[in-house]
Order: sequence, then structure tokens, then C-alpha cells
Amino acid sequence: MKRFYALFVGGALLLAGAVGVAMASGHGLASYKDNFEPITVMYVDNPDNPVTPEKVELGRKLYHDPRLSKSGLFSCNTCHNIATWGMSKLPVDIGHQWRLGPVNSGTVFNAAFYEAQFWDGRAADLEEQAKGPILAHEEMAMPSEELAVERIASIPEYVSRFKVSFPEDAEPLTYDNIANAIAAFERTLLTPGRWDRFLLGDNDSLSRAEHEGMKAFVDMGCARCHNGVALGGGFEKMGLVNNYPSESPSQGRYDVTGKQEDKNVFKMTTLRNIEHTYPYFHDGAVWELEEAVRIMARLQLGRQLNDAETKSIVTFLKALTGEIPEHALRLPVLPASTAATPRPDPS
Amino acid sequence: MKRFYALFVGGALLLAGAVGVAMASGHGLASYKDNFEPITVMYVDNPDNPVTPEKVELGRKLYHDPRLSKSGLFSCNTCHNIATWGMSKLPVDIGHQWRLGPVNSGTVFNAAFYEAQFWDGRAADLEEQAKGPILAHEEMAMPSEELAVERIASIPEYVSRFKVSFPEDAEPLTYDNIANAIAAFERTLLTPGRWDRFLLGDNDSLSRAEHEGMKAFVDMGCARCHNGVALGGGFEKMGLVNNYPSESPSQGRYDVTGKQEDKNVFKMTTLRNIEHTYPYFHDGAVWELEEAVRIMARLQLGRQLNDAETKSIVTFLKALTGEIPEHALRLPVLPASTAATPRPDPS
Repeated sequence: MKRFYALFVGGALLLAGAVGVAMASGHGLASYKDNFEPITVMYVDNPDNPVTPEKVELGRKLYHDPRLSKSGLFSCNTCHNIATWGMSKLPVDIGHQWRLGPVNSGTVFNAAFYEAQFWDGRAADLEEQAKGPILAHEEMAMPSEELAVERIASIPEYVSRFKVSFPEDAEPLTYDNIANAIAAFERTLLTPGRWDRFLLGDNDSLSRAEHEGMKAFVDMGCARCHNGVALGGGFEKMGLVNNYPSESPSQGRYDVTGKQEDKNVFKMTTLRNIEHTYPYFHDGAVWELEEAVRIMARLQLGRQLNDAETKSIVTFLKALTGEIPEHALRLPVLPASTAATPRPDPS
Repeated sequence: MKRFYALFVGGALLLAGAVGVAMASGHGLASYKDNFEPITVMYVDNPDNPVTPEKVELGRKLYHDPRLSKSGLFSCNTCHNIATWGMSKLPVDIGHQWRLGPVNSGTVFNAAFYEAQFWDGRAADLEEQAKGPILAHEEMAMPSEELAVERIASIPEYVSRFKVSFPEDAEPLTYDNIANAIAAFERTLLTPGRWDRFLLGDNDSLSRAEHEGMKAFVDMGCARCHNGVALGGGFEKMGLVNNYPSESPSQGRYDVTGKQEDKNVFKMTTLRNIEHTYPYFHDGAVWELEEAVRIMARLQLGRQLNDAETKSIVTFLKALTGEIPEHALRLPVLPASTAATPRPDPS
């Protein structure tokens, strides 16, 4: 994709040179664009869990099914709400028995592009991620994988959907495949938009002010970490230059590896749709995008941004808002429980 | 509508007589059908709150917006989940601070046909109903109407949507109009299906066993209460012949009127989609439709149903499952909060 994109831009510049006009309107954008990649796919496939229409439909149902929580109150969609850009927009989430989680729920949109999942990267991919919250004490609180499987396996429509979604598996309905189906759905939750049209050659899909904001973003060094297709999704220390004071118990990647150098190293959230994915940072402590930008500049670059600089960066960041695809906004109709379905339990 | 329907069926019978064939296949269904009415509208209008496309779209957003709850966790859709046939399917709902409600949440589908709203009928219509849960201590727990309005009014997209939805109001964004918009959306949540095609003359859209079930339902006296378009929605004493033992604190309509004769008088839930709207009764104590039918027969009719009778009635009841309209399954994209938006508060 990267290679294709580079060729494409090369061609566009050549053409611009030939007609001798458009260079000015592009005003040297190409080298800036080279930090980023457009979304050019409908989904991010996983060879170990290929995205198929059957699996996506099954995953859509499971994603919205509150029976995957002990109480029957929470579905994946509760904390990663499609209607609110893939997250709950709460600083930290409210889970079983009104327990508050330690960190902010990230957006599910474009998470398929991440290097790893969760703020501390403890899951390698979406397939592994999906298995966590269902069992987590302060989230959906299912007492065991077995009970999750038992709930789902008690519903005939699910049984047959697992069969057609995982036709090669001797036992299609497993906890792993519940997660695989959910992940397949999530792999389709991408939000291309005018930013991608811009990267693909349509300079006019961003305004002049947005062009300038992108340049400032790159020139200041933001794109050293926030680059590629997700403008995030890799790991970085929160507080490269100055410390970030936080009340969160999380120490990021250190909680997983125990290595000193991983203290306060977090997986970077994508900057796509960032104007909608507040409150910001792993502790959800910051509500305003302007403030988040100022904090990042101070912590990571040791820079005190002035108002004009902040405004310019924010103008650029707002150009990263994409479009939620229609199919993502379609609610499933969930199949009925049966006499064999273990009951919801709020205790 | 009733009048039109009667004429229509009369015409169908006349035609059947003329061709001298179809009478047997109808085997005297007409007088049974006369207890019921089909859904023939796309929405149930309210002259005091006319349903308009603008209002429905605004209502869709508000219905799914968790910012109408103090914590930011609950939207109308949490307890009246479109994906699970308009309710949560919990015995009683879990609300703010994990408080459990006193009664089961009813389905929103076809609720527009009800005589009154809530199990005790304390709201005259959906417009009045929608104002309740937002403020209820054990539900969405907003501390005041003012805070609900303040949250919504801090969001520019909502402000302009209220203006176009309530163009004649000097002050369009009020707590009453929040409820009016939600109710307008709910007034479109109807689920016509093969039952309605049957009532409108297509006898084959129900099987013979379903025809027989309908006859048993009427002959036993069930349709004395469960009739009309919703097969429910009016008031009746729960326990006309035998008492219903319940742990629920609710005494039904008595809680509103204080009249002895209203003790344990409840608004009847619609029987449309009843196979999906478990658990049953105001206390959500009964999970199986078969058991609910047996209990109703014993309590209301003093009848002990045998297995064949129960099965026949249940067969009929399952024919009352309609189709959730596509538009109801479309999630909105919610507009972003602003610096002026009062923050969610889980306390």
C-alpha cells in the first residue's frame, strides 16, 4: 500500500510539473504527506482469522449482545459505542457492580491498524483483545470462559452461525471463536474520509489552513510518533521530556513487561477522529483537544505552544475526522435466549 | 381503521363465497379475526406532537444518547434496546450506581398503541413517559430537568436540530421537547408482520396450527383483554380469579390512584413479539412463554391448561412476532460535546 501510494504521488507531481500550474496549490505537500498512509481497504484482514461476511455478521451480533456480560447489562458496544465514535466518552468506564476501570476505553474505529491492543499493549491483536473485557472483574465480569460459551451455545441461531463462520473447526463454538468473530467485525470498523482523499492526491479535500496545520504538525516533530495509516498505534513513553502527572494506577507497558524502560510507555491512540474521541489520554483526564495538544507538545517535545500554533495543529487534527461507514451503523436483531440459557446475574 | 378492516374482511368473504372454494381454508376465521386489528400505519401520530422526519431523526439521536444520564452510561436504548426487541431482557433493570428498579422494563416496540404508559399507567402517553426515566433515581438519575437541557443545549448540532424540529416554539430546546422528540421516534417503532397480513386477508400467512391457536386463544377468553391492535395496552387486574404472588413492591395502578379496586391492576404489555419480550410480567419473574401462558390462564380465567392447550396458544403467540423495521436498526452518529457540556458524573 505504501509503495503504491508513493508511486501515485510521484505520478501526480510529475503531472503537475508538466502542466506547470498546480505546484503552487500543492506548495510542497508531498514530502509532508510521506509521513502518512491513506486507508485504501474496506477491512484489515488477519490471515489467522480471515474476515468473511458470515463472521462479520456473527461478530456484529456478539458485539452488541449484553449476554456476554454476567449481569446482562453490558455489551462490547457499551464501552465501545459505535454511535459515539467507538468509545463511551467517559474518563474511565463503569463496569459490573458500578466498578470503575483503571483506564479510558479506546475507540474501536481503526484499532485494527494498531501494533498491539490495550493501553499497555498486553494483547497482540483484536482477536486477543476481545477476550479480555468479557472476563474482567471491573468490566463485563463473566465468571468464566465456559459460562460465556454456555450462554451463546444455548441459542440455536448462534450455534448455526458459528458453524458457517468457522466451517473448518471441529468445534466451532469456542471462547476463542467468540473473540475471533467479534474481531472480524471490528476489522471492518474503518473510517476513511477526506484526509485519505487528500493523501491519495486530492489536495483540495483539505483547506489551506489544514495544509499549514499538517506542516506544523510534521515540522514540530509530532509525526515522529503519530505517523502511518493510524497516526498512532505504536508505543511511546508518555512524558519523553516532562512527566505527566496522573492519578491512574496504570504504568503502561511496564505493567506487562516489568522493565524499567517501559514505565509510562503506552500504546498511542489513533489521531483519526480525535476530535470525537475525548476525553484524552489513558486516564481520560483531559476533555479539550486544544489542551491535549498543548500537553503533548510540552511532555513529548518540550515545547510551549502559543495560541496560533495550537490552533493550527488542532485545525489539522480535525481534518482527520473520517466517515463512519453505513454498515457499522446497522444494529443487529439478536436471537432469543432459550430455557437452557444461563440467566443474567447482577450480583 | 377498525371500520375499514371490517369492510375489507367482509369483501374477502363475499369473494370466497362467489368462487366457492376458499371457505374451507378460512374455516370460519372471520369472527375470530374481528377481535384484533392490523397495523396499517408507519407510525402512530399524536396531534399534540406531530411526527415529522426532523423530529424522528432528532429523537433517534436523543434515544441513543447516554448524555441524558447523570453518569453518561445509560441511554434510553440501554433498557429499551432496539437490538433486543425494545427492552433489556433483564427481570428488573440496573440503573445508576447499580440500583435495581422495582419493575421490568417494557418493550418500546408498539408501545405507541398503549392506552397509557408504565406498568401502573402513570404516564398518559410516550411524551410523558420519556420524561420519567431520565430523572429517576434508580434509572438515569439526572439531578434535574435543567441539567438535562444544559447538556443537550451545549451541543450546537442539537440546538439547530431542535430549531428545525420545533419551528413554532419560541424556546425549542426544553425538557418537554427532549421528550417530545424521543416520543416521535418511538411512535415509528412498530413491527407489522405476517400477523397483519393475515388480518388483512391473507389467511395463508398463518399456518393451520396458528389458526387453531388463535381460535383457542379467543374461545378461552384471552382476547377479552388481549385484543385490538396491540393485543394489550389497556388495564387489567393481575389475578382476576387467583392471586399472583410477587416480590415486586409495585401494586400497579393503586400506586397512582390509591383506590382499592386498582390494587394489582397493571397495564397489559402487548402480545406482539411476545416470544422475544421475556422475562414476563411486571416483576420479570417468568422466563418461559409456556409458563407465562399457564399462569395467565390460572390467574385470569381460573383454568388449568393441559399441554396441548398450552402448546396451541404458544403456537399462536409466536405468530405475533413482527419485523423490526430497517430504519429502527439504524444507529445515529452522535454530535460531540463541547467545553460547555456538563461532564458525566458516576457519583
